[in-house]
Amino acid sequence: MNNMQKGVAEFIGTFWLVFGGCGSAVLAAAFPELGIGFLGVALAFGLTVVTMAYAIGHISGCHLNPAVTLGLWAGGRFDARGIPLYVIAQLLGAIVAAFLLFYIASGSPAYDLAVNGLAANGFGEGSPGRYDLWSGLVIEIVLTAFFLWIIMGSTDGRAPAGFAPLAIGLALTLIHLIAIPVTNTSVNPARSTGPALVVGGLALEQLWLFWIAPLIGGAVGGWLYRTVGADSFPKPNIEGE
Amino acid sequence: MNNMQKGVAEFIGTFWLVFGGCGSAVLAAAFPELGIGFLGVALAFGLTVVTMAYAIGHISGCHLNPAVTLGLWAGGRFDARGIPLYVIAQLLGAIVAAFLLFYIASGSPAYDLAVNGLAANGFGEGSPGRYDLWSGLVIEIVLTAFFLWIIMGSTDGRAPAGFAPLAIGLALTLIHLIAIPVTNTSVNPARSTGPALVVGGLALEQLWLFWIAPLIGGAVGGWLYRTVGADSFPKPNIEGE
Amino acid sequence: MNNMQKGVAEFIGTFWLVFGGCGSAVLAAAFPELGIGFLGVALAFGLTVVTMAYAIGHISGCHLNPAVTLGLWAGGRFDARGIPLYVIAQLLGAIVAAFLLFYIASGSPAYDLAVNGLAANGFGEGSPGRYDLWSGLVIEIVLTAFFLWIIMGSTDGRAPAGFAPLAIGLALTLIHLIAIPVTNTSVNPARSTGPALVVGGLALEQLWLFWIAPLIGGAVGGWLYRTVGADSFPKPNIEGE
Amino acid sequence: MNNMQKGVAEFIGTFWLVFGGCGSAVLAAAFPELGIGFLGVALAFGLTVVTMAYAIGHISGCHLNPAVTLGLWAGGRFDARGIPLYVIAQLLGAIVAAFLLFYIASGSPAYDLAVNGLAANGFGEGSPGRYDLWSGLVIEIVLTAFFLWIIMGSTDGRAPAGFAPLAIGLALTLIHLIAIPVTNTSVNPARSTGPALVVGGLALEQLWLFWIAPLIGGAVGGWLYRTVGADSFPKPNIEGE
Repeated sequence: MNNMQKGVAEFIGTFWLVFGGCGSAVLAAAFPELGIGFLGVALAFGLTVVTMAYAIGHISGCHLNPAVTLGLWAGGRFDARGIPLYVIAQLLGAIVAAFLLFYIASGSPAYDLAVNGLAANGFGEGSPGRYDLWSGLVIEIVLTAFFLWIIMGSTDGRAPAGFAPLAIGLALTLIHLIAIPVTNTSVNPARSTGPALVVGGLALEQLWLFWIAPLIGGAVGGWLYRTVGADSFPKPNIEGE
Repeated sequence: MNNMQKGVAEFIGTFWLVFGGCGSAVLAAAFPELGIGFLGVALAFGLTVVTMAYAIGHISGCHLNPAVTLGLWAGGRFDARGIPLYVIAQLLGAIVAAFLLFYIASGSPAYDLAVNGLAANGFGEGSPGRYDLWSGLVIEIVLTAFFLWIIMGSTDGRAPAGFAPLAIGLALTLIHLIAIPVTNTSVNPARSTGPALVVGGLALEQLWLFWIAPLIGGAVGGWLYRTVGADSFPKPNIEGE
Repeated sequence: MNNMQKGVAEFIGTFWLVFGGCGSAVLAAAFPELGIGFLGVALAFGLTVVTMAYAIGHISGCHLNPAVTLGLWAGGRFDARGIPLYVIAQLLGAIVAAFLLFYIASGSPAYDLAVNGLAANGFGEGSPGRYDLWSGLVIEIVLTAFFLWIIMGSTDGRAPAGFAPLAIGLALTLIHLIAIPVTNTSVNPARSTGPALVVGGLALEQLWLFWIAPLIGGAVGGWLYRTVGADSFPKPNIEGE
Repeated sequence: MNNMQKGVAEFIGTFWLVFGGCGSAVLAAAFPELGIGFLGVALAFGLTVVTMAYAIGHISGCHLNPAVTLGLWAGGRFDARGIPLYVIAQLLGAIVAAFLLFYIASGSPAYDLAVNGLAANGFGEGSPGRYDLWSGLVIEIVLTAFFLWIIMGSTDGRAPAGFAPLAIGLALTLIHLIAIPVTNTSVNPARSTGPALVVGGLALEQLWLFWIAPLIGGAVGGWLYRTVGADSFPKPNIEGE
């Protein structure tokens, strides 16, 4: 695949992650009784990755996340020269998705950006359960590290072929089941940036944490698998599929 | 497979999609506390496709949806001469399913068609969350386009073999997690037509949108993948498996 | 595999289906707020089949259900001489599971058999949503027919290998998402017989329907796939895997 | 793989099981309306195993549980000399995870260890539904035995390759759907030990049951499959993959 195709695939995939994941949370928010709750949102985020990984894994590797791109580089699976293209495409996809989602949500008489927000990430006052900065920082680092460990392991040449998109997507569902109450779950700087640019205010002020923590965690997770989990005779899968 | 077999398979499959998806919503509606909610309905719609795609994918390709048939044609995966047979079989399956579902629902003393409806699609007054026409139009176009992108990508010869039914069915679950509050989620003109014919009134008046939007979205999604996502040396899978 | 092994496998598998499916419903009944609801019960029934089909599919074919055994015979996939052994093993597994479940449930001060029941099937007064006999009869026939169609199709030699347990188990989840409000969902005479023998009364009086309807539906579904869905050059998978 | 790698993998995997499973329960506890409920917790525990089994199955076999290690030894799939290393690594992972989870939970103003606990296991007063010792003992033995039966069967050389992590992880989800009301579900002495050491008191007093019952059940399940389910010409998968 050429670089244009990879960039378009990462744009489309990251659009889908933010539009689907944040969209499920924002649009169903008016239905507490029949709605989908944290469980439905966790499932939605995971399924954006499951579906896109099968659809574009063979084009770009389906990173959809600067922390994944960095982590795969730290794990020796991705060429550093590809990082800028991937990260820019991911950011653009996330930002366009957030603005389109805001447009659609605004079509409901019950929606008010200042009240309902756009599923932004946060800590302290910005945390659904008022978890403080340290809880947010630690959980984002730990979860992103495990996310990368699972990505590296399930795409290892010794793991069963074809199942990695399921394992990785369901890992993201699990990560949301754990951390929505703490930070609304990021583990993905692009996913945090899109809604923060629409919402502004607190979300934008706290955005730094959702760049630093996932990037640290991703790099640690990729490096750890490379160091500890690798075979003596590695058969790496370049680009994560 | 001959055409008769393909037509029967599309009839049975689309019956299943409407009976299972709409049925889960309609029959459980009297149990708000223990019921399945939007999450259960989203899962049910997706599982109709997962199960049928494994059961009849090798017979008809398991489209179950005029927008999928059109989109696969736009994507160069389906012969235009097959469209009429497929669409007619899909419509008949959806309509028979809607009437049978109405018969079964009527066996409960608590069921009233005028009050409980039959999981029809709508916008404005017909939208669960009162989302307006533009929100409905945009989200149906966008979601059907992504649906076709995922169908095209996951059945690409370079994607892992055998997983496409899971990816496609779970994409439909995700699409419902996002859009039930907006339009009750169509992305499928046949699925909208069945209940609208039973319910009549507003559902029938608004049916046009659920033909136009999914067909536009489907064609765009199929064409986009063909243009952007295709390999230089494509190995297309005719009929979606 | 010899017959003793097949019988033990069907006993263990059907025990699991009733213990897991009915157990999830009965034991969590005291937790309406945090409980699993119809959705969790639907998932539990499906997962009993997913897990057992991977565990014993290669031993007995993992029928766990007299209607499946009959349907696979009607579909030309199972030898009539095996039916008595399979059905007896299934019934014994279901009955032992129901009594053990009752023993465990009785360990809670909040459990009362007369009030909480044991997830028996029923219609009219015995239906969760008071659906009448005709609704119950029709939905059980239709759903069992589709269940067999999916079993036959997903284990067809032309379907992707290895995915049938997922397709079949998730079909059972879907079937429960649709029909729990109507009959508490049977599609399986053995599953209905176990709890009915423990509960007695209405459940026992209405048990006939949950033998007749699933057996009719199963035979129709198996025969239909054999007639309509089969290839001109069939490569049948004996025993459902 | 060498022993150091296996030990690290078991440490990381069991950390993930306790941090993800118990974490989903503890952190979302303040959100009864929108929260994930028993269903979400059941899904989380299962997904820890699905994701880790694809990530480290090829390194250590992904036991994450002393009862699994013992059961696989009883089933003839694991060398007794590996047991101490595996059990120690599992215990360390579980304990570190429990303490880290406590640290993160403490970052919320609403969290109080004495009130909210840490998803410890228990019976009688320690049981979510006040189920007595005998119900707890029996259900833990039965469920662990079935867990091992499914692990042995789905990793049998005759089962479809690559699906075992899904079958085993979803079995753990099912087991939680059944037994959370009874014992909060253990089937894993390491998973019980971590939270018990943090919480102390009743959880620590009752910890013995969650060592004895799972170990008995696991050994019985592994031995049963070896005895009843095995082929005449076995092709065992050493280490559970």
